[in-house]
Amino acid sequence: MTSPEAREKAVLEAVAERRELVNEAIPEELPIVRPERLYEASRYLLDAGGKRLRPAVLLATAEALADVEPLSEPYRTFPTLTGGTVDVMAAAVSVEVIQSFTLIHDDIMDDDDLRRGVPAVHREYDLSTAILAGDTLYSKAFEIMLETGSPAERTVEALDVLANTCTRICEGQSLDVTFEERPNVTVEEYLEMVEQKTAVLYAASASLPAVLMGADEAVIEALYGYGLDVGRAFQIRDDVLDLTVPSEKLGKQRGSDLVEGKRTLITVHARERGVAVDSLVETADVDAVTETEIEGAVAALEETGSIAYADETARELVERGKERLEVLPDNEAHDLLCELADYLIERGH
Amino acid sequence: MTSPEAREKAVLEAVAERRELVNEAIPEELPIVRPERLYEASRYLLDAGGKRLRPAVLLATAEALADVEPLSEPYRTFPTLTGGTVDVMAAAVSVEVIQSFTLIHDDIMDDDDLRRGVPAVHREYDLSTAILAGDTLYSKAFEIMLETGSPAERTVEALDVLANTCTRICEGQSLDVTFEERPNVTVEEYLEMVEQKTAVLYAASASLPAVLMGADEAVIEALYGYGLDVGRAFQIRDDVLDLTVPSEKLGKQRGSDLVEGKRTLITVHARERGVAVDSLVETADVDAVTETEIEGAVAALEETGSIAYADETARELVERGKERLEVLPDNEAHDLLCELADYLIERGH
Repeated sequence: MTSPEAREKAVLEAVAERRELVNEAIPEELPIVRPERLYEASRYLLDAGGKRLRPAVLLATAEALADVEPLSEPYRTFPTLTGGTVDVMAAAVSVEVIQSFTLIHDDIMDDDDLRRGVPAVHREYDLSTAILAGDTLYSKAFEIMLETGSPAERTVEALDVLANTCTRICEGQSLDVTFEERPNVTVEEYLEMVEQKTAVLYAASASLPAVLMGADEAVIEALYGYGLDVGRAFQIRDDVLDLTVPSEKLGKQRGSDLVEGKRTLITVHARERGVAVDSLVETADVDAVTETEIEGAVAALEETGSIAYADETARELVERGKERLEVLPDNEAHDLLCELADYLIERGH
Repeated sequence: MTSPEAREKAVLEAVAERRELVNEAIPEELPIVRPERLYEASRYLLDAGGKRLRPAVLLATAEALADVEPLSEPYRTFPTLTGGTVDVMAAAVSVEVIQSFTLIHDDIMDDDDLRRGVPAVHREYDLSTAILAGDTLYSKAFEIMLETGSPAERTVEALDVLANTCTRICEGQSLDVTFEERPNVTVEEYLEMVEQKTAVLYAASASLPAVLMGADEAVIEALYGYGLDVGRAFQIRDDVLDLTVPSEKLGKQRGSDLVEGKRTLITVHARERGVAVDSLVETADVDAVTETEIEGAVAALEETGSIAYADETARELVERGKERLEVLPDNEAHDLLCELADYLIERGH
């Protein structure tokens, strides 16, 4: 049995190896062509970094299904289950391009200034360019997904997954906005919102290789379920980290979700237990809040068991997600997907 | 030989008949589901009206290709050229949904208050809802295009047309924004921008039935060319109407393109002939400009032959577009597509 630190290090290395390959593929799939300013704005956030967790999930699932050695060459073209090959890297880039489009538009909606340590696209460029850059990435994601070389029936199914995923992300974002104006959001409603806004893109990432490579419906569904489970766990873990990690390590003010009145599984749970969540932190300005205020709020949320509840919920989701992976062959990539799931809830930031 | 008025009336009736059917299909393809506010905002502009010219082009092309009686029942399911049926109405709605998405986002970028006589979506709702409504329509258009029942190979090709069309519309919008800051746009550059921003959606509308119904590549290309030609002619005619139609009939200030410094084929042509286009109208506020100022500007643009040049260019495009229709069977729908092309440049508003 290896130590948790050693396991985390191994997962991060596996993610980094795949990130390298994704980073090489992005400029190939999305070159900066005329009109240059539009494509530069479209690439700005993609080039600024990002963990590439969704592409890593997608590529690892493809490796597991194809039952090949991890990172075996030629990496881009994978053998399918029904003969021929399919370019899963195109699918991985497509998913990351969708993620980037949603971040650009979300930052406008939330009026956020920073993303990945650089100005948000609507700050670095302007509102019009940011809207248009997002719109361009949107159609480019579909164009890229059309180029995997998968048989037409499978490509149609993959595009259906992609389009449906985008619709559900929009619905989730809309619910999220609505929830900020509603005091009485339930745990069930909150989890549904997280599923739509965040988890569906993990579900698409995990299931698209199965779709493109010709796996059975049962395999596709199990992998989709894995993505939904770990995607929700990922978001819940984010909510916990916002409260429990020091600001320096977090890269932003600890407890900023609380200050900004954002709904999280923790606050929704606490409110159901009678806590006046909106009064936990009096200051409404992230720059003005004191560490003492945050600590008082965290203590109150610990007392109702709300932080422990969120941790436990994330853990249960990850356990269920890992069980769903039993449809995959028993190989290294399968193990990596299990470790990735664990990492999502064990990570410190 | 019927009179021009009688011909225009007949075309408008044919468009109106198809519009009725499109208006019935829109709520079926895009029902208002949870979250209601999002779908209400997405439907707002679609429900506010519109000529449905692009769906009319699409449906007429389908009728011509299938060689059926105009509006023959059951209208939604058309026989394909290779057996089976295809739901072209879904494709027609998909194209109109794309058009609506681009209008919502364009109105934000141009900071316009009104559209189709009602407040723009970002005015009726808010910026976030308008961005999200456009994004929702975007993915819904792909979902709807996936439901025509066409064979997988053809569906993949149709989605390729749709995705590529969206990319080119974004590129065209980006060029349009850039051109507003550049004094020296050439006629060629202007026409390229119009092709990307406006004409490609007409091209998609005209060619998608051929794609979905299994026509030869030569037929698909000819119909795509027809759409590019009449789409550019449509935009050029819009530019002419802005200068030549009284404000009351136009529904907005005559010459507003000039006042706002918008590039049109007319001003680009005049500038190439040495006219100081930016000085033609001193007033920069549409509400403050006088009819005398506009008349002076129009006289100057007539003197250089710029308005006549635009009229002539539109006419040539329409003639070429009509010639391309020779790939279609000689039937009533074929004639309608010719008349539609004529109408686009003869219409008085």
